[in-house]
Amino acid sequence: MLVNHKDLNFLLYDVFNASELTELPHYQDHDQTTFDEVIKTANRIAEEYFAPHNSKADEHEPQFDGLSVSTIPEVKEAYKHYANAGLLNARQRYDEGGMQLPALVHAAYSGLFASANPSTAGYTFLTSAAANVIHAFGTEEQKSQFLPGMWDGRFAGTMALTEPDVGSSLGDLATKATKQSDGTYKLKGQKMFISGGDQDITENIVHLVLARAEGAPQGVKGISLFITPKYLMDENGELGERNDVQLAGLLHKMGYRGTTSTVLNFGEQDNCTGYLIGEEGKGLSYMFKMMNEARIGVGLGAAMIGYRGYLESLEYAKNRPQGRHPSSKANDSKPINIIEHADVKRMLLAQKSYVEGSLALCLFASRLVDEQEAANNEDSATLLDLLTPIVKSFPSYYGLKANDLAIQVLGGSGYIREYPVEQCYRDNRLNPIHEGTHGIQSLDLLGRKLWMKGGKGLQLLLTRVNKTLKRCQTHEVLKPLVESYSKKLTLFSQTTMQLGQNLQTGKVNETLANSALYLDMMGKMVVAWLWLEMAEKALSLAGEGSKKERAEGSNEDKHFLAGKLQACKYFIEWELGEVHSQSKLLTELNSTCADMEEAWF
Amino acid sequence: MLVNHKDLNFLLYDVFNASELTELPHYQDHDQTTFDEVIKTANRIAEEYFAPHNSKADEHEPQFDGLSVSTIPEVKEAYKHYANAGLLNARQRYDEGGMQLPALVHAAYSGLFASANPSTAGYTFLTSAAANVIHAFGTEEQKSQFLPGMWDGRFAGTMALTEPDVGSSLGDLATKATKQSDGTYKLKGQKMFISGGDQDITENIVHLVLARAEGAPQGVKGISLFITPKYLMDENGELGERNDVQLAGLLHKMGYRGTTSTVLNFGEQDNCTGYLIGEEGKGLSYMFKMMNEARIGVGLGAAMIGYRGYLESLEYAKNRPQGRHPSSKANDSKPINIIEHADVKRMLLAQKSYVEGSLALCLFASRLVDEQEAANNEDSATLLDLLTPIVKSFPSYYGLKANDLAIQVLGGSGYIREYPVEQCYRDNRLNPIHEGTHGIQSLDLLGRKLWMKGGKGLQLLLTRVNKTLKRCQTHEVLKPLVESYSKKLTLFSQTTMQLGQNLQTGKVNETLANSALYLDMMGKMVVAWLWLEMAEKALSLAGEGSKKERAEGSNEDKHFLAGKLQACKYFIEWELGEVHSQSKLLTELNSTCADMEEAWF
Repeated sequence: MLVNHKDLNFLLYDVFNASELTELPHYQDHDQTTFDEVIKTANRIAEEYFAPHNSKADEHEPQFDGLSVSTIPEVKEAYKHYANAGLLNARQRYDEGGMQLPALVHAAYSGLFASANPSTAGYTFLTSAAANVIHAFGTEEQKSQFLPGMWDGRFAGTMALTEPDVGSSLGDLATKATKQSDGTYKLKGQKMFISGGDQDITENIVHLVLARAEGAPQGVKGISLFITPKYLMDENGELGERNDVQLAGLLHKMGYRGTTSTVLNFGEQDNCTGYLIGEEGKGLSYMFKMMNEARIGVGLGAAMIGYRGYLESLEYAKNRPQGRHPSSKANDSKPINIIEHADVKRMLLAQKSYVEGSLALCLFASRLVDEQEAANNEDSATLLDLLTPIVKSFPSYYGLKANDLAIQVLGGSGYIREYPVEQCYRDNRLNPIHEGTHGIQSLDLLGRKLWMKGGKGLQLLLTRVNKTLKRCQTHEVLKPLVESYSKKLTLFSQTTMQLGQNLQTGKVNETLANSALYLDMMGKMVVAWLWLEMAEKALSLAGEGSKKERAEGSNEDKHFLAGKLQACKYFIEWELGEVHSQSKLLTELNSTCADMEEAWF
Repeated sequence: MLVNHKDLNFLLYDVFNASELTELPHYQDHDQTTFDEVIKTANRIAEEYFAPHNSKADEHEPQFDGLSVSTIPEVKEAYKHYANAGLLNARQRYDEGGMQLPALVHAAYSGLFASANPSTAGYTFLTSAAANVIHAFGTEEQKSQFLPGMWDGRFAGTMALTEPDVGSSLGDLATKATKQSDGTYKLKGQKMFISGGDQDITENIVHLVLARAEGAPQGVKGISLFITPKYLMDENGELGERNDVQLAGLLHKMGYRGTTSTVLNFGEQDNCTGYLIGEEGKGLSYMFKMMNEARIGVGLGAAMIGYRGYLESLEYAKNRPQGRHPSSKANDSKPINIIEHADVKRMLLAQKSYVEGSLALCLFASRLVDEQEAANNEDSATLLDLLTPIVKSFPSYYGLKANDLAIQVLGGSGYIREYPVEQCYRDNRLNPIHEGTHGIQSLDLLGRKLWMKGGKGLQLLLTRVNKTLKRCQTHEVLKPLVESYSKKLTLFSQTTMQLGQNLQTGKVNETLANSALYLDMMGKMVVAWLWLEMAEKALSLAGEGSKKERAEGSNEDKHFLAGKLQACKYFIEWELGEVHSQSKLLTELNSTCADMEEAWF
């Protein structure tokens, strides 16, 4: 199973009210049936064409013989089915061949592919994201040259940012672009860690390359963005000459092995043609359109790899007899299934709280994308901006933690490749790194996002949180959780305010030194809020039972509600305890780490 | 570098006073020079014969063609050098060909091999441990048949406990042993996850197999231990007939790939000969001799894999320029090395505190082994018993956490096999599983070890802790740390007492439900104590400077001291904060996890 579909439906329709989106003009032709239909199709393709070769692609990673790259044939087949179902451009307008699908529904179906096979899904996600940038900022000519191929699956896309010497610090990048008399540019430089940078899946690969135009200023303001295809397009819109983009070599990752990770040389023969997107010097702002999407995508992928491991370990725990309760050690008694051991329950409940909480977070972010794009809701845009570092980081950290627990539930079996959870763990380890490490996200959050528009984002968040808390108060069972959460919320708010004051009074380095701690603390507060939201919604639905003929309430519904309540309880009682010590370290501007000197290590 | 040798020497000679051991009759022929000599030799062999193929053995894991297993030739070569240097039986008496080396020094040099190449080192550790069991409990005939080959490297040893249906719950194991008229037994059954269960490194493999003699009672009391060699020994002490032990297949691990993990069939042809060790029904107690050693060994291995990753990431951080301080974003400034970033310092300092703390813990445990064995100190034995679950678990959890941080320091490079840290991470993930999972260790600690001999172990621990605290009080710089630690110590003691009372009043399942939380809490308290011990020792040495001509104190010494102080500070300020929330959950007998029902997931 790729996800608990009952949970996914609950999140989509009950918690985030996907049906409400169909009231917006842009989505008016949709209803729950069309959404369900897309998700059903996606689920079928993910199960039939993605999941079966997940392990095989890991075992047989792409090979480079010095001339070309070969991947196992199942990857190409899967990519084709994904494209043919219209999933590469499902979010585009009808008149452009798309399905005009909300980001929320797009996220839901994308998650199924990330669960089934994150490596193969990686090619599809990169292509959609790159196409979106060209669609948003490219000229009509650029769009007509590249988008049809990217949308129908003949082409793939990449984002080429990192260089051997330049990773997180993009302002330093050195790839050069020299303007030609015909308006095109010649690119020269090396890029590294480019996912999907070469492959044998598609006819063409459209690289979006960050480079510095000749004479451009240093730093981020000198960076431009260039469409740089593997094959140039001829006048008839057919594949033309080979462009001077060469694969220097493949990198060999611990996980996500099915997706090539490449070192690419641009312009080794001084003949690499690139087409400027938009204006010179604005490359990074265009790329951030893609990057912000990619960051939500990374969070979603991490959540779903975590989710997959959770379901696998749950299945194992239900069927593996071993040991007895501490109080009944009789030798002749039958062993119980390990799901009955309290510590195994803990490991499963922790996973549930991390992965369902992470998925909720990512779907919430996608809902905000819809509100921003289709309803022009500026508040939603502001809130999304604030939350993006958390949407990227929380699932990356806690999804991986979930996979670690999944291995532990399986014990020795969890550690061997004969079972699927070790691959989840290896795959998921990438997510706290790419598209901006934890450290980078934490600086973005505490150094920038919190204070934009006078702190509007945080106000909007707290307003939503308080609304949820108020609704929770109507349920007796939630009151102790609300009380506990509220205390921590006060602490969190005070901490944030104090850090803001520190920054205003110039204590920049001191305050930002512990930003990673803040990122984790705020992430937990946000996800705990979403857990209260889920618990409240589940309780309300159960209360509406009689109306909606949930009267006799299927056992399944009752169990679902009980599970949501217990996971909410777990997350607040077990995971939020740390907020106190984190707040203390943050407010006292603890300098133990920052004071450490190189020579002392 | 396999370890920071300055740190290792500090731990050996200053903190754990290895030289004092030479006052014991058993070790009287030793002095610091002989200890140093062994460590130097071990370090050379580890660097020359183990480290170079660590990555290669991972990439080219052992193959089974249906007839025999093949490993890369470097493994056999390394094993030979290890044996030839007398390291397999270094702890045995001189008159038995050994070096009569203390456990403390043995642990120090073993750690070097675990750092260099945990997989190849695995074969040597298993052999020494199996030989120790035969040495301790075997008959003279058994000893003379098997020990010479095991000690000189012609044979290897294994421990064969787990079966496909029986992992943690050893009492249920089903392998049968039928007594023959000649006093030998015929074994029949299948064992799984047997490390080193087959290989082409040694002429013979001596399996120590747990099995149930015919007619034996159910449960742990019916378990006996059998020497079951791959090849029987003939009357001349030469290799004789092939025994009926067959390799059913290899398991494919995520890490530790160089060590075979096997499924073995014993007695498929009804002709597997085993020799009973000691008495029937006492097998588990003999095995626990090996197991307790193995548990310290697992802790040590985890500590050293963590240590290795720390040193690799430290080296990288010192040499990788990237980014600038938050306060100085000038585009034309030169990038700083990432070790200057506060968050990178945090990741390095956390690693340092985990791995140096873990190593101290394992060396302390080994020191206790010496006091127990060579000085017959019963208190040391009691304390060791109490601490074994922690010695096994703390490094397994925090060593892995260190490796996770090492990857994060390297960023994208950390995730690829072109750099060594991802292998550390994969290797180390085994350690929280084998030789008793975290869950098992935590039940052993909270359900049993704490209350043995009327809680004597804990008293002994607290006495030692309080002595350290008293000495710390003489150093102004340590006072705030002692104060902070003492508060948590009180909390920890109160929590422990209350849990003890709960158990006495029959709340067994409720109390043990959260044992994993207790294991982590107590582990942190113990390691924080060792950090105070290290900090105090480093300060005292610096104070003795003038006497010992450390007067002008080399910069190196000053930096070493500063590093120890800072890591101690970090561990207490940053890692112990959680003790409060953990204590709360434990004392309130929080039942959120235990109450979770299968149907609710």
